[in-house]
Amino acid sequence: MAPETYAPLTPETIPARLGGLPALRALIGPDPATWRAVEVGDGNLNLVFIVSGPSGKAVAKQALPYVRLVGESWPLPLERAWFEWNALTREAARAPGSVPTVHHFDREQALLVMEFLDDHVILRKSLIAGVEHPGLASFLGLFCARTLFRSTDLSLPTAEKKADVALFAGNVALMDITEALVFTDPYRDAPMNRHTPGLEALVAELRADEALKVEAQHLKWAYTANAEALLHGDLHTGSIMAVGDRISVIDPEFASYGPIGFDVGMLIANFLMAYHAQSGHEAAPGERDGYREWILGVAEGIWTTFVAEFARLWREERRGILYPAALYEDQGQPAAAERALADRLGAIWVDALGFCGVEIHRRILGLAHNADFETIAYEARRAACEAPALRLGRALVHGRRTIGSMADVCALARAEDAAGR
Amino acid sequence: MAPETYAPLTPETIPARLGGLPALRALIGPDPATWRAVEVGDGNLNLVFIVSGPSGKAVAKQALPYVRLVGESWPLPLERAWFEWNALTREAARAPGSVPTVHHFDREQALLVMEFLDDHVILRKSLIAGVEHPGLASFLGLFCARTLFRSTDLSLPTAEKKADVALFAGNVALMDITEALVFTDPYRDAPMNRHTPGLEALVAELRADEALKVEAQHLKWAYTANAEALLHGDLHTGSIMAVGDRISVIDPEFASYGPIGFDVGMLIANFLMAYHAQSGHEAAPGERDGYREWILGVAEGIWTTFVAEFARLWREERRGILYPAALYEDQGQPAAAERALADRLGAIWVDALGFCGVEIHRRILGLAHNADFETIAYEARRAACEAPALRLGRALVHGRRTIGSMADVCALARAEDAAGR
Repeated sequence: MAPETYAPLTPETIPARLGGLPALRALIGPDPATWRAVEVGDGNLNLVFIVSGPSGKAVAKQALPYVRLVGESWPLPLERAWFEWNALTREAARAPGSVPTVHHFDREQALLVMEFLDDHVILRKSLIAGVEHPGLASFLGLFCARTLFRSTDLSLPTAEKKADVALFAGNVALMDITEALVFTDPYRDAPMNRHTPGLEALVAELRADEALKVEAQHLKWAYTANAEALLHGDLHTGSIMAVGDRISVIDPEFASYGPIGFDVGMLIANFLMAYHAQSGHEAAPGERDGYREWILGVAEGIWTTFVAEFARLWREERRGILYPAALYEDQGQPAAAERALADRLGAIWVDALGFCGVEIHRRILGLAHNADFETIAYEARRAACEAPALRLGRALVHGRRTIGSMADVCALARAEDAAGR
Repeated sequence: MAPETYAPLTPETIPARLGGLPALRALIGPDPATWRAVEVGDGNLNLVFIVSGPSGKAVAKQALPYVRLVGESWPLPLERAWFEWNALTREAARAPGSVPTVHHFDREQALLVMEFLDDHVILRKSLIAGVEHPGLASFLGLFCARTLFRSTDLSLPTAEKKADVALFAGNVALMDITEALVFTDPYRDAPMNRHTPGLEALVAELRADEALKVEAQHLKWAYTANAEALLHGDLHTGSIMAVGDRISVIDPEFASYGPIGFDVGMLIANFLMAYHAQSGHEAAPGERDGYREWILGVAEGIWTTFVAEFARLWREERRGILYPAALYEDQGQPAAAERALADRLGAIWVDALGFCGVEIHRRILGLAHNADFETIAYEARRAACEAPALRLGRALVHGRRTIGSMADVCALARAEDAAGR
């Protein structure tokens, strides 16, 4: 239920409604009458405005009480802006510089006013256009390691971690979307599913694969039960903005406590899908061969950086209740702490590969598709890109306990890509 | 902080303070002046009174704002009574007849007035005295399966489950006790630890065992992060009352969401300790041979019943968001649902054996010991009982991924017991 005072912004009402805020007047311009606002939201859920004035710009993001893409028939609580704001402020503290600065938050209006990221584009568009971003893998690996590690009981005072588990447990409606659309619907004939014509035989094969469907629900169990770390919750290449080597992560409204491997696996999945989409974007076969490999390099680099930074934080910032130095280093047994770290990273890896696999499946078989594939106009060509990705997803879910490295994952992707052409 | 109106009850003030409650007057007697109250608390934390009158009895349990055993220097929030009441009402709904009926709850006074369990004794006392209780294994296996299964996302509407995860995440102080005393302190020279003289060499061996200490913290990770089911949280034989075949589970003030294997493993651990304590209670060697085996039979029966009932509930009451029939049975793939069940029970088993092992260790090496061993007056004899239990605990933690059945666990217990004599 929206509060009675809630009212959606419009370009016309923004100067009057936000002009009273000193922080915005200082940023955009002292006279709100000179401000201009444009609605630019292209996502599925919210209103997004760019507000410009003589001295600067800001982004205003306001939740609607329903799913924008579908309409009022699919209500969605405004409170998601409250969870987004809570997640954003925590990400800013834990991975400084990696998310937009928040200028203003209004819980009743479900409104966040944030830094305008000049010239940035959605990373997914770069990946479709064949644009490289230096430092991308390192940025994303660090973002994952820092936001995740620093929200666990490895790092936070446990009372603070438990209070945050309680807080984010309220983000039920957004978790419900993930629970249904990622882990269940792609594996059955659900009403909102769609897929490219030509994939029917493969889709039937996946839905007949009992072991695959059991693993998908094991992963859902982990998503719903394992409150390890505060997840971004929707960490795909559409939630990342970039220009050159300047990168920012946005839109954590799906934030919840969950398994560390969820963010990492979903992120890597989106690079693997970008990889498989490349032959759909080539003007001539082989044109994107170099770029293709750059993408796999990013996927591999995200994991390598994540592991290195997680290990650094484990060694330098392990001040929570878990694996205390009092049991290991302080007893002259530093090797035990390293052994525990290796075990934890191993468990994160197994989770991440699983989440990676189901994320690929749901983006091709479920409701919410990726522009990487959707922008491939010819259906037969699109299906020829999607089929290898689906097979890779299945191989990752089945093989998550045996696949040993990101190099092996990339080799699997290359093999599926080659077999699909 | 205690509310200003909070005041501990005394036998003298009980008639005046509780006499105004119609439910209690109906139960105990219409004239509170005829009531008598006796303080009988022998636990570590709370005041417990039996209130009697011409027509009946009731038990009044009131939390103190500190640990009773230690005194005001160890404060403990009164809110634990609120969590206990919430847990008790849920247990009553999910496993009807297995917990005392609540007559009255007062959150400000941290006071629960409950059914008086006529003639019941703490089960641990029976196990020390050599008393058998028919139906014990079945009762406890059913209690675990029902309270645990029915609090998961296999069964509850997920919004209700998430609200309960949030609620019980507030029970920080009691979880903190478990986190420190079960998983960490026993494995280092912590100030409040104590152990029977004669165990020094074995204690040193355990604390030097790096793999053991890594596993102990993996189990702590699972306890703090894996919000699978609403745990009783302190399910040992001192939290069970029994007379003949009438059995009741009490004292869920440690309730929190956690891994299913925690309750099951802790419970079985306490039977295994009772087993190893038997030779300390024998007047002549072999006198308790039959009883010893009865105890192992109970441990085995708890697991067997738990598995059978969990499986029944899986097949008949799986109405939550996890492993939906829509993916399996409704697709003509019932074998997939059975495969998922077997996987889940396998994971619970691995967890349970681990929790079982650390529970044994902490009861012999940590702060809170068991009367099973403590009532063995001669230290050398006590140590001779405790050492095999410690070795069994280690074998369970190390072997939790390979030990295949409760029969194997019992065989290990017998072997350690025989080697220790």
